[in-house]
Amino acid sequence: MPNPEITPVVPREGWHVLHLYYHVDQAQWALFSDEEKRQAKTRLTELVQEIRATPDTHLLIFSVVTPKADLGFMLLTPDLHVANQYEKQLTLSLGPEILSPAYSYLSQTESSEYTTTREQYIADTLIGEKGMTEGTPEFEASLKEFDDRMAHYLKHRLYPVLPDWPVLCFYPMSKRRSGNDNWYSLSFEERRQLMAGHARVGRAYSGRILQLITGSTGLDEHEWGVTLLAKDTIDIKAIVYEMRFDEVSARYAEFGDFYIGMQLPLDILFRRLCL
Amino acid sequence: MPNPEITPVVPREGWHVLHLYYHVDQAQWALFSDEEKRQAKTRLTELVQEIRATPDTHLLIFSVVTPKADLGFMLLTPDLHVANQYEKQLTLSLGPEILSPAYSYLSQTESSEYTTTREQYIADTLIGEKGMTEGTPEFEASLKEFDDRMAHYLKHRLYPVLPDWPVLCFYPMSKRRSGNDNWYSLSFEERRQLMAGHARVGRAYSGRILQLITGSTGLDEHEWGVTLLAKDTIDIKAIVYEMRFDEVSARYAEFGDFYIGMQLPLDILFRRLCL
Amino acid sequence: MPNPEITPVVPREGWHVLHLYYHVDQAQWALFSDEEKRQAKTRLTELVQEIRATPDTHLLIFSVVTPKADLGFMLLTPDLHVANQYEKQLTLSLGPEILSPAYSYLSQTESSEYTTTREQYIADTLIGEKGMTEGTPEFEASLKEFDDRMAHYLKHRLYPVLPDWPVLCFYPMSKRRSGNDNWYSLSFEERRQLMAGHARVGRAYSGRILQLITGSTGLDEHEWGVTLLAKDTIDIKAIVYEMRFDEVSARYAEFGDFYIGMQLPLDILFRRLCL
Amino acid sequence: MPNPEITPVVPREGWHVLHLYYHVDQAQWALFSDEEKRQAKTRLTELVQEIRATPDTHLLIFSVVTPKADLGFMLLTPDLHVANQYEKQLTLSLGPEILSPAYSYLSQTESSEYTTTREQYIADTLIGEKGMTEGTPEFEASLKEFDDRMAHYLKHRLYPVLPDWPVLCFYPMSKRRSGNDNWYSLSFEERRQLMAGHARVGRAYSGRILQLITGSTGLDEHEWGVTLLAKDTIDIKAIVYEMRFDEVSARYAEFGDFYIGMQLPLDILFRRLCL
Amino acid sequence: MPNPEITPVVPREGWHVLHLYYHVDQAQWALFSDEEKRQAKTRLTELVQEIRATPDTHLLIFSVVTPKADLGFMLLTPDLHVANQYEKQLTLSLGPEILSPAYSYLSQTESSEYTTTREQYIADTLIGEKGMTEGTPEFEASLKEFDDRMAHYLKHRLYPVLPDWPVLCFYPMSKRRSGNDNWYSLSFEERRQLMAGHARVGRAYSGRILQLITGSTGLDEHEWGVTLLAKDTIDIKAIVYEMRFDEVSARYAEFGDFYIGMQLPLDILFRRLCL
Repeated sequence: MPNPEITPVVPREGWHVLHLYYHVDQAQWALFSDEEKRQAKTRLTELVQEIRATPDTHLLIFSVVTPKADLGFMLLTPDLHVANQYEKQLTLSLGPEILSPAYSYLSQTESSEYTTTREQYIADTLIGEKGMTEGTPEFEASLKEFDDRMAHYLKHRLYPVLPDWPVLCFYPMSKRRSGNDNWYSLSFEERRQLMAGHARVGRAYSGRILQLITGSTGLDEHEWGVTLLAKDTIDIKAIVYEMRFDEVSARYAEFGDFYIGMQLPLDILFRRLCL
Repeated sequence: MPNPEITPVVPREGWHVLHLYYHVDQAQWALFSDEEKRQAKTRLTELVQEIRATPDTHLLIFSVVTPKADLGFMLLTPDLHVANQYEKQLTLSLGPEILSPAYSYLSQTESSEYTTTREQYIADTLIGEKGMTEGTPEFEASLKEFDDRMAHYLKHRLYPVLPDWPVLCFYPMSKRRSGNDNWYSLSFEERRQLMAGHARVGRAYSGRILQLITGSTGLDEHEWGVTLLAKDTIDIKAIVYEMRFDEVSARYAEFGDFYIGMQLPLDILFRRLCL
Repeated sequence: MPNPEITPVVPREGWHVLHLYYHVDQAQWALFSDEEKRQAKTRLTELVQEIRATPDTHLLIFSVVTPKADLGFMLLTPDLHVANQYEKQLTLSLGPEILSPAYSYLSQTESSEYTTTREQYIADTLIGEKGMTEGTPEFEASLKEFDDRMAHYLKHRLYPVLPDWPVLCFYPMSKRRSGNDNWYSLSFEERRQLMAGHARVGRAYSGRILQLITGSTGLDEHEWGVTLLAKDTIDIKAIVYEMRFDEVSARYAEFGDFYIGMQLPLDILFRRLCL
Repeated sequence: MPNPEITPVVPREGWHVLHLYYHVDQAQWALFSDEEKRQAKTRLTELVQEIRATPDTHLLIFSVVTPKADLGFMLLTPDLHVANQYEKQLTLSLGPEILSPAYSYLSQTESSEYTTTREQYIADTLIGEKGMTEGTPEFEASLKEFDDRMAHYLKHRLYPVLPDWPVLCFYPMSKRRSGNDNWYSLSFEERRQLMAGHARVGRAYSGRILQLITGSTGLDEHEWGVTLLAKDTIDIKAIVYEMRFDEVSARYAEFGDFYIGMQLPLDILFRRLCL
Repeated sequence: MPNPEITPVVPREGWHVLHLYYHVDQAQWALFSDEEKRQAKTRLTELVQEIRATPDTHLLIFSVVTPKADLGFMLLTPDLHVANQYEKQLTLSLGPEILSPAYSYLSQTESSEYTTTREQYIADTLIGEKGMTEGTPEFEASLKEFDDRMAHYLKHRLYPVLPDWPVLCFYPMSKRRSGNDNWYSLSFEERRQLMAGHARVGRAYSGRILQLITGSTGLDEHEWGVTLLAKDTIDIKAIVYEMRFDEVSARYAEFGDFYIGMQLPLDILFRRLCL
């Protein structure tokens, strides 16, 4: 599908991410014959297969809870041309009058500027906290473990493989710039410490919540998109609520709306949406 | 109706709650023959019966006052897949072009983190206030009474059975995080004391107002949904107005819009909506 | 019309008030034959007669200035079931596709908590200011005059009879809860004194502006609805502008949008709206 | 056109002002035959002639820049009934499905409360600044000149005749009531001085910008409407930008959206809008 | 195309700029025959050629990422009448029911009031910093270089020629007037210094980001429009993010929504949009 005539727009690192939410126009769908309905569903199914067969490209599909929307996609792919093309095709996949956009969000995977650097880890943790001596086998082993852990973490941030957990939560957020609560007037060190506390809360939900933060400053209405995958809404409610008491959120976060979707195989999804 | 192919998404405790508000498209309805109208009403009636026959599942139905909406449902059920399926079916129940979503809200029943604990009750009330001695029959009886009361209260919060009182008020709310009025920067003890005053106001309306607070942080636009059932709008106006002077509301509450509905049997509801 | 099968929802005191604003869909209206247009206008005319014949029920009808809306109603009636039924019928009265809701507001007539009490009047005015002695004929006469005035005032607040003055202004408002400007953190006495100044401005327009404040905390988006009737827009502009300098408004009021309507007999209204 | 059956609603001084913005539904227009298009344009042309022939009534017509709207009118007329009637007729003039309202604003011409009074001019300027003696011919001449200037100014404010300059800018505005920036908590004298500086900026654009301030407190969403006529957008941008540094705007002004229109003769306007 | 009957509205300096975003109505498009589709695309292609052949007139065309919109244009032209005419024609170019406006913005190219003046450069840089003597060959050469650089810069600001880089970002912004963060209460010198830091960040992206700031105070909803052209979204995200820490943005900027488009030749664009 990538168009050979045009140069790909692929970032130096990371992927483009599109969250797409649609209403199903059931009145138009009802006008389709059974054969037309079958063809429409086949068309979407084949497009999904084509997208998922595209290198480094992932597509999550979900039924949206509450009539804010019906059908949702999360598309991750390196080339913005490909993202743009697939997005227009997904919108049309069930026929030109069936899916109408309810909400969308454009962001990009990115590494965090606040992650512990190798230098910080050596100075603060290995030498400072654990009292190791540089160059000892123990030191080297710990450092290697740190390197592996960070490489793994960075790979997840930039090139995430998302599990098929049933509940998907998405919300956009920005940092506040208001009177005395101005995130962008803090020093890097102040921000780094605030974010460290925030990350600790996140780690406490490891195995229950998979969290992916993607950047959207200059790309869409807020500064970040947050995608949470979970086995249960109660964990989503718990982690977002707990983080709200964290100073980073309490004083500095502005949230957009929250969208809950349920990942489903396409055939069950069609039945869920009465298609 | 629960789909045997997919694993239920049931929270460790509590139920999912969906508030659903719809406009009736009367121009489309007028195109139906009498027979089609009868069939549409039968379809909704049968779906309501099926939902109400689902274990641990409750459905309130109401006519909405003011043209903000016409028809409203409040659905309580443990499995999010079931909630999602019934929601899509309710939307379609009168035909694909009749009900269009006007507003919706997703939340979850939850216990309150601020309720008096057994330890607090023993120390503050039984020993502190009433001067009882631990282990005496009087002490044990009072403690049992407390345990029963709290169990009953918790059951109402997590698995509520709502009365058929005619007036239903729903509104979403969040706690403020703004300058000096930042709820999430208060200590737990400060929040607990503020909430205690708030609860006292609520108890003064016992028997006239049934109040159900459900959590929606991370699930929908605000942090909580508030459902009030009453026999009269004057009590709804009175309790919400009185609570507004409470510091919890005066300084820390942000409210969404308020929706007033009237619970009605289906046949009277159809006539109310001129269906 | 009140449905004998269902228990009325009538407040202990006062009436329910519905402000209803509609767009006329002229494209749909143009599809009607002359006979269908005549029938539609007859249907609305008969419904208006039925509503006005309902006990304790009043209906004002007006053409709306600016295309924010075309047709407006203000309905006052004791039973919320009746209000809800009439509202749905008014929406449909010209045919199912003609009137589409542009704005609406639900409130309730209420007495003011800040009116001078009998005790205050005796202590502050009769004894304090006028130097009367309790029990003297002069004292009794003045007290009776006060009682009559307050009874009249209360009757107007709870069961208003509105004049047919041509200009009707409606706007919703709330009291501010923001930083140092938090109405709900003031003491009752502070609020009473602020409101007294506000009332003085209102009295200066007596005979030119009829003002009705109705309560909507818990019922609709703001806390009060304000209905002004006048013979001229210049008085409406003058009173709202003058009150804005009053501390109650300057520091504590948040206003919604303002709607200007013109009361008209139905036949002239139909011509005004090109029906 | 004024309806003889109903009493005019004419303010003691000044005119009612309606700004009306419409989208043209080109898909509906394309369904018209050439003859129907010709008739529609004739109908609008005749209505414009009728309106312009109404005593004390002015109508400006413009093409709107950017698709915020297509066609705009500014109507000035004394009687609110006439304004209301013409507004409904203008909306329908090209056929019931062609013009759909995009934005509108109701205001009223008014004199400024901050203009220099005769007493201030005598005391501050004639005697204070120029050292004249009351009653001298020089004094009388200067006073007459002042009287003439103010009469002219007042006439323009209350009964403006607007030039046919090509660019028309409209925006609504309110004065801020927020924390320490509360216009309505300032004394009259403070406000008068702030407004005097503002007026000086306005006078510097005399001959290039014609500015008309109309009042809308209690009538529409903001407190004033501002209409600017210019020969060029660069002057509009310059005056609004320069005024923004003025304390009146910098600290106390809240602006609505800005609309740019181009005054055109009807035949060129029809071509501009591809009608 | 410029209409000979009407006087052009051309600013003393600079061009008018229109950003236009449209949704494609695919349901209507699907009703076209292949021949009608071909004709529609030819019509748009020919209009684009006509616009690009108009003197001093530029047109950028792009596919919009995310369903916020589908098709976007950026039009730069001196005469506001021409801009208005082309805008209405572009809207209709694919047929009267195909393109519906999703967003638009009107602004004007302008020079910056904060650029270094010749006098500042002589005093601060040539004499102050570099220790040159006025009139020396070295001094004259440096001054000429400055003059050339500024002429080039001014030409780009007022009469920009934009490259065909694939990614186009547009967002509107205003300067804040809120409590202690009031841009318009700062002195010119304070603003000039703050802007100088901002410009330094911009220069660091030279060659990767082309930035065009256009003024819209008095013309549209915000005070400026910002157009960024880039080869990659990662640079857009980086520059907007980095600038946010700059005091000018951190304390004083209010942003509207961000729109990402991809410049494409018309034939590829048609395929991208499934036309």
